[in-house]
Amino acid sequence: MIATKMQEQVQNSSVIRAMFEEGKRLAAIHGVENVFDFSLGNPNAKPPDEVNQAILEILQADNLMSIHGYMNNSGYEEVRAAIAKSINDKFGTAFTQNNLLMTVGAAGGLNVIFKTLLNPGDQVITFAPFFGEYRNYVRNYEGDLIIISPNTIDFQPNLVEFKEKITSKTKAVIINSPNNPTGVIYSEATIIKLAEILSQKQKEFGTDIYIISDEPYRELAYDNAEVPYLSKYYANTIIGYSFSKSLSLPGERIGYLVIPNEVADYENIISAANIANRILGFVNAPSLFQRVVAKCLEAKVDLDTYNKNRELLYNALVSYGYQCIKPEGAFYLFVKTPIENEVEFCNLAKQKNILLVSGAAFGCPGYVRIAYCVAYKTIEKALPGFKALIEEIGK
Amino acid sequence: MIATKMQEQVQNSSVIRAMFEEGKRLAAIHGVENVFDFSLGNPNAKPPDEVNQAILEILQADNLMSIHGYMNNSGYEEVRAAIAKSINDKFGTAFTQNNLLMTVGAAGGLNVIFKTLLNPGDQVITFAPFFGEYRNYVRNYEGDLIIISPNTIDFQPNLVEFKEKITSKTKAVIINSPNNPTGVIYSEATIIKLAEILSQKQKEFGTDIYIISDEPYRELAYDNAEVPYLSKYYANTIIGYSFSKSLSLPGERIGYLVIPNEVADYENIISAANIANRILGFVNAPSLFQRVVAKCLEAKVDLDTYNKNRELLYNALVSYGYQCIKPEGAFYLFVKTPIENEVEFCNLAKQKNILLVSGAAFGCPGYVRIAYCVAYKTIEKALPGFKALIEEIGK
Repeated sequence: MIATKMQEQVQNSSVIRAMFEEGKRLAAIHGVENVFDFSLGNPNAKPPDEVNQAILEILQADNLMSIHGYMNNSGYEEVRAAIAKSINDKFGTAFTQNNLLMTVGAAGGLNVIFKTLLNPGDQVITFAPFFGEYRNYVRNYEGDLIIISPNTIDFQPNLVEFKEKITSKTKAVIINSPNNPTGVIYSEATIIKLAEILSQKQKEFGTDIYIISDEPYRELAYDNAEVPYLSKYYANTIIGYSFSKSLSLPGERIGYLVIPNEVADYENIISAANIANRILGFVNAPSLFQRVVAKCLEAKVDLDTYNKNRELLYNALVSYGYQCIKPEGAFYLFVKTPIENEVEFCNLAKQKNILLVSGAAFGCPGYVRIAYCVAYKTIEKALPGFKALIEEIGK
Repeated sequence: MIATKMQEQVQNSSVIRAMFEEGKRLAAIHGVENVFDFSLGNPNAKPPDEVNQAILEILQADNLMSIHGYMNNSGYEEVRAAIAKSINDKFGTAFTQNNLLMTVGAAGGLNVIFKTLLNPGDQVITFAPFFGEYRNYVRNYEGDLIIISPNTIDFQPNLVEFKEKITSKTKAVIINSPNNPTGVIYSEATIIKLAEILSQKQKEFGTDIYIISDEPYRELAYDNAEVPYLSKYYANTIIGYSFSKSLSLPGERIGYLVIPNEVADYENIISAANIANRILGFVNAPSLFQRVVAKCLEAKVDLDTYNKNRELLYNALVSYGYQCIKPEGAFYLFVKTPIENEVEFCNLAKQKNILLVSGAAFGCPGYVRIAYCVAYKTIEKALPGFKALIEEIGK
């Protein structure tokens, strides 16, 4: 018999992954070119050439044992130093290798920091719509995820409700900008206000409340939009980063945490995070790819690939009568469904071989997420289906 | 403030890793060639040539997106199929890809299976001496690790005490053969008896009790010694494997779980393990190295490297008067300390620049572990120190 907690999980097994399997089934029937799978955030822009060049350089130049061997659980010192320097150059921060911990992707990093911080019953606040896995990551350590209802006007966080829901048990706030699933970047004005509220509440309750900034989409911002670097606005900020999207390496599981010196209880947090990385079974971030990303800090996938998709899809859907915010980053479009029940809408879309994810998975029913990290042709071929859908519903 | 559980962890921070740092400190003072660090199980046999050849082949032949992209959380189907076939060829089993789940090393796999199985208060039994991290892996899921006291005659498990300590709350038994820290292989006779006891106790309590076989050292068995494949002796067996030692890739974090069809509640366990892999933040085993190991299933590090070390160190220590069992596998020697207090002995050894790990870390005080996965020269240069140590103590 499996654990009780896992029984629930098996029953509710990830909507997103279930859809992925459904896509494979439909592809087997209709041919892969006639199924339009917008369900998964699996990057389709190819990794920059620097990635494989870096692998080849490392295999030629370095000592074999040092390429594939153990290192400090936090990662190679020189890799952490190189990343710290790169962040400092871009954002005017003053990090050193001692502020960095290499992680098994952002998902690994978030688990490490929640293991480090949370006591049973501690509350972590997030803003809907949000990446559904936060529920699991917080629950892994007996924490409670407190969800702030969505502001569907512009999908900036609802700070009025936020202020009301902070309690003495609030240990952290997790935010994700550019956001999955909306593509919205939280504005500097939002961040300043959010930091003010938190500072005031820390004082009121005599507690430390950490911002955990989940930033896998930082590098995917269109039209040179700025993504504020949060540690500059609020001292108790911990950053979780991943190279999954910036270098299209999601399978390789490589990312990092930044824990600035200014964070309350810094010494204990960095020590505990190092231990958490070990005892959760990550041990260390994959060794070869630590060195690879250190050689690719200025490289980036071709954002134009995603931007073309964004323009095509957004403009077409709006012209058909769909309502959505134009994404400023990431590769998702979050669309209000023309019928209230978005699960029903997903089923209607499936009849046109279009696979979408229900907004309920992100704490925001009445919407669907379209992951447009797919071939341009896929979008072109899917558009008639989207058009027919809204027309049929309108009848 | 960090989590209460982590405060303890920070205080007791891993003895092994602390020693690793101490080694670096001593090396800075005395020169790295004059410090004899036997504290860490970091393989020093170089990875077989097939590893880097495989990387090059994959980079040349395969589609870039598929090399570094997401796949099913359980891993690539063709990789799992290749590994299943390789196990079947070697051990006469009948596994398919549906019995395999690729993991972030064995440490990742063990966390996945404990997350899958354990309810708070469930008991997991292990036999001292044992790999100290089991304590953490079990505690991560609110389980209790029940330790069977060591049989210091031959370091086969103490099955009398084992039988007495099985209760209705016993969910699993974790065993590790070839064993860290003793190098002992649990004999077929031991396995048969252990399986008999478990079958009887399952009947008595009406429960399922799983054997979790932690096998990172399976390929490191000397003199063609046989390491029994446990699923052939006991139906409720789950195997955790790692390529860290067989291919000297510990930094790359690549391994797998085998969950045979015969395991009770197989369908739920395999589903839940897949989900646990995702929600614990592993998501999937590193993608490039999944393909690499699939191409290296017949490759193996040069065992002779370790065997020469074993012979040199074992014969010398015994000739000096130390008492220890000759290891049949792995790369550790577990030595009875000539004074009762092994922590004091470790400190005396440190004065000769010899770094050892106290047996207490493995639940077996009065002993020290010597990890001989070091250069042959290091052992040669350390031997006079070992000799002087026992002579000085004898005076």
